[in-house]
Amino acid sequence: MRASQFFIATLKEAPSDAEIVSHKLMLRAGLIRRLAGGIYTWMPMGLRVLRKVENIVREEMNRAGAVELLMPAVQPFELWEESGRGPKYGPELLRFKDRHQRDFVIGPTHEEVITDVVRREVKSYRQLPRHFYQVQTKFRDEIRPRFGVMRGREFLMKDGYSFHASFADLEREYRNMYETYSRIFSRLGLKFRAVAADTGAIGGTGSHEFHVLADSGEDAIAFCPTSDYAANVELAEAIAPQKVGAGGTATMEKKATPNKTKCEDVAAFLGLPLTQTVKAIAVMAEKEGGSEFVLLLLRGDHDLNEIKAQKVVGTFRFARDEEIVEALGCKAGYIGAVGFAGRVVVDRSVAVMGDMVCGANEEGFHLTGVNFGRDLPQPATVADIRNVLAGDPSPDGAGVLDLCRGIEVGHIFQLRTKYAEALKCTFLDEQGKDQVMEMGCYGIGVSRIVGAAIEQGYDERGIIFPAGIAPFAVVIVPMNYAKSEVVRTAAVALLDQLLAAGIDAILDDRDERPGSMFADWELIGVPHRVVVGERGLKEGKLEYKGRTDTEATMIAAGEMTAFLQTKLCG
Amino acid sequence: MRASQFFIATLKEAPSDAEIVSHKLMLRAGLIRRLAGGIYTWMPMGLRVLRKVENIVREEMNRAGAVELLMPAVQPFELWEESGRGPKYGPELLRFKDRHQRDFVIGPTHEEVITDVVRREVKSYRQLPRHFYQVQTKFRDEIRPRFGVMRGREFLMKDGYSFHASFADLEREYRNMYETYSRIFSRLGLKFRAVAADTGAIGGTGSHEFHVLADSGEDAIAFCPTSDYAANVELAEAIAPQKVGAGGTATMEKKATPNKTKCEDVAAFLGLPLTQTVKAIAVMAEKEGGSEFVLLLLRGDHDLNEIKAQKVVGTFRFARDEEIVEALGCKAGYIGAVGFAGRVVVDRSVAVMGDMVCGANEEGFHLTGVNFGRDLPQPATVADIRNVLAGDPSPDGAGVLDLCRGIEVGHIFQLRTKYAEALKCTFLDEQGKDQVMEMGCYGIGVSRIVGAAIEQGYDERGIIFPAGIAPFAVVIVPMNYAKSEVVRTAAVALLDQLLAAGIDAILDDRDERPGSMFADWELIGVPHRVVVGERGLKEGKLEYKGRTDTEATMIAAGEMTAFLQTKLCG
Repeated sequence: MRASQFFIATLKEAPSDAEIVSHKLMLRAGLIRRLAGGIYTWMPMGLRVLRKVENIVREEMNRAGAVELLMPAVQPFELWEESGRGPKYGPELLRFKDRHQRDFVIGPTHEEVITDVVRREVKSYRQLPRHFYQVQTKFRDEIRPRFGVMRGREFLMKDGYSFHASFADLEREYRNMYETYSRIFSRLGLKFRAVAADTGAIGGTGSHEFHVLADSGEDAIAFCPTSDYAANVELAEAIAPQKVGAGGTATMEKKATPNKTKCEDVAAFLGLPLTQTVKAIAVMAEKEGGSEFVLLLLRGDHDLNEIKAQKVVGTFRFARDEEIVEALGCKAGYIGAVGFAGRVVVDRSVAVMGDMVCGANEEGFHLTGVNFGRDLPQPATVADIRNVLAGDPSPDGAGVLDLCRGIEVGHIFQLRTKYAEALKCTFLDEQGKDQVMEMGCYGIGVSRIVGAAIEQGYDERGIIFPAGIAPFAVVIVPMNYAKSEVVRTAAVALLDQLLAAGIDAILDDRDERPGSMFADWELIGVPHRVVVGERGLKEGKLEYKGRTDTEATMIAAGEMTAFLQTKLCG
Repeated sequence: MRASQFFIATLKEAPSDAEIVSHKLMLRAGLIRRLAGGIYTWMPMGLRVLRKVENIVREEMNRAGAVELLMPAVQPFELWEESGRGPKYGPELLRFKDRHQRDFVIGPTHEEVITDVVRREVKSYRQLPRHFYQVQTKFRDEIRPRFGVMRGREFLMKDGYSFHASFADLEREYRNMYETYSRIFSRLGLKFRAVAADTGAIGGTGSHEFHVLADSGEDAIAFCPTSDYAANVELAEAIAPQKVGAGGTATMEKKATPNKTKCEDVAAFLGLPLTQTVKAIAVMAEKEGGSEFVLLLLRGDHDLNEIKAQKVVGTFRFARDEEIVEALGCKAGYIGAVGFAGRVVVDRSVAVMGDMVCGANEEGFHLTGVNFGRDLPQPATVADIRNVLAGDPSPDGAGVLDLCRGIEVGHIFQLRTKYAEALKCTFLDEQGKDQVMEMGCYGIGVSRIVGAAIEQGYDERGIIFPAGIAPFAVVIVPMNYAKSEVVRTAAVALLDQLLAAGIDAILDDRDERPGSMFADWELIGVPHRVVVGERGLKEGKLEYKGRTDTEATMIAAGEMTAFLQTKLCG
């Protein structure tokens, strides 16, 4: 490729509405252009990246035995009624009526359509298992599209669906996809983690998310660096501490703590460690015919995990000031469980504490030396209701947890018989008996990967793409291209050699200033650069510089192709 | 590829709603499955065909210097208001409101979006010309989708748009695309014609359609077999005949023609040639404040071309019985221009007639021996208002016309400044002056091509695909695959050899009955078949049969790959 026959559209500044690094750099490097909120044109430079990601995904899906097809984007709404999903789906589902007033949706996913295809085509256990996938543009009407292609409304996705005669076979394919996804993200050159979407153990669970690790990620992930445990912090288990001793021995005392409403302030004021304080969080749990005032007790240094708490007390909201005063006779900041006769849920970490510090249910006062079984009853409900912290033991017993942030780029899921049952997708088993198929689904956010890769690879000069998905693997930058015949000849010869060797190279024949060309290609993130200049050529040499190298290297012109081949394979 | 790892879904019978051959065969061969009216899933077998078409289109577009990008399917309606096209577009344009009640469309084409991209990115004549294209799924809400993928609502299209600093440069790119499209359809292995969408002359005109020739085509095309003239019959010019003599010499006579209202019947009844009769067609032409009664005169053997007539008299409708009686005192079937004082439009072929036969404006009577300048005035308006017939002289003077039917699969169009002006897409010329860009657009119906190729290539056994777009180039059909080790080994070895040679082969390892496998692959239209059987292997031979061959040929096993390579290159 020659730059003059391509389209390069770099910008000095990113538009001000771009919030995160990848969004800014994709705009500046001319990979995308905004058409409307969450809707982007993939410019020629960006489309090359998108297609490279798409092709790696396709190659590995084919290798794994899945078969590609292409379902329509437009789907009749009646299928969504049949599955029962239509009425539940929120406004991000784009619905419309056609000119004959029939209801349709622009499908954000295709469980219904593929199940409809399979129930018509597959009748016997002999035709199972089946795994179909597609790479398709999808639309999801996000309420607040942001972060460029990371949370766009129109996006490219790979979605696959597998059908099985037994749960055991679904589990086999699920493992196959777990490995396939790991291979895909490795080939894409990304640092990633497979994260259990529920309990965190690989294998036995029904769902894993694949996250690209990046500080800007929307998801907090807990992982064990010494094992393959990883889970969303929302779900990662804080295991019960070993019981230390039989609680405390101090006498309960009431201490004045004027204007100290936070555990941190109370601990500092009393000269006690934060880990000895207990925070009481008042919530109103839904109950038939009304709601119930419940106290949740957490250690002062821990944060409430609402999802876990919901599993214990059901749907809840935080209590309002007047509800707290009514239940405890005191406003928030000084409340505690001592003397409270209602329902109390105690976090595992609190259950093993002794000589606790907690609110006295009297404004301006806290209690010290509080102990279960003496100052308040032994806890009736002990549960894991907090977020894990770095340093907590890993639930798999293989070390301690660390925390990081991730961008979800893949998701595999055991759907089991949810859709197959609703849509009557059955097969005749070996005994000639009608059985409902087991189903799995497997998604990869192809366009999102481009953004995620940039969040993981950039510096102050621009994008640092992994070689496999860079728009070009090599850029040839000639000095004085228009005027120097010797430079022109050498540059074109090198381009021809690289293309003949199957290396995706571009020759920048725009004849711009060298600094401007260098800046463009560093911004775009091409991993390898060769400068062709008269001075070097006199000595038979070309200048090589990797995108992250601090120094350039002179390489004999005749060896450059082999040199780059080694770089690209390594 | 092995059949067991793929998905073959042939049907004995096509669903009864499939009207044309390609639709029936695509369903029977398992290329597509219907989801809703005009909306189809591309099954694995069909998707392979679609992708091969798409890739040939892409390769040739790239070779022609166009640059690929990908615009969003969803477009803000405001761009359509800016271009002025939105309000005019009919109900086939799918509009919707997003969750914030903003208006969007699912773009059936992308003139507005690309013009918006270019007006932001291209500022100077130095950045011109530019040609961007995309391959994208489109939606058009056809009132009556039919013929499978030939007139579907959701379809895959290549749409390209070029921008130029001058009309001359647009014309250059238009010729480039004319040649590129010709190359694309040739590589696809299709018989096609480039058809002038207006006057029929190549080069000077602003629009050409590319038609695949097939009897089932929706468009009638007039073409000259001895030149490259081709035009839609709607537009093909019937050139003026050479004036023969000075009209007729017979005396005008009134003849009783009871119940003879058609020219054919009148001619037969009077024993005169049909070409001597004149039919008068009464129409009401729109006029300010009302309408005008106009007579159109055509030779008895000619058909009215309404599009041409409209260019002469403006918008019109056919006159109602009472209007005819009021104007001529007689009902249709016996009307003529003799004695009529109103407006008369005379077809070129009528203007040179003498001794004409026409209606007497009296029920049951016709006139013979009618001549211009004596029995009625010399025609005030002579125009081409008829359809051409096979045998008419070609307008380019290079022979006589023939007629055929075609399926439109491509369209190139000089948009000129229509969109660029509306959207203020300008550039600074060499003098620093603001100029509106000249624009061309170029479309190819990728999914429609699959149907068109089948309309052109089929027999009683199924599809006959051109080798370049067949789902597989070669199928290996082993006899007794499950039980015969020697067959299995030879079949797998051949598959490996063919794949290594870059030949897109499939091994049918389903172990079905030979007749059933043969029928499947003939239905699917794979061009080359190799049968691997024990009997042949004993002599070191394999059986080859081309899809259209009547006899199979035995080929030495070791020469099969080279043999097929020759077949595929030839």
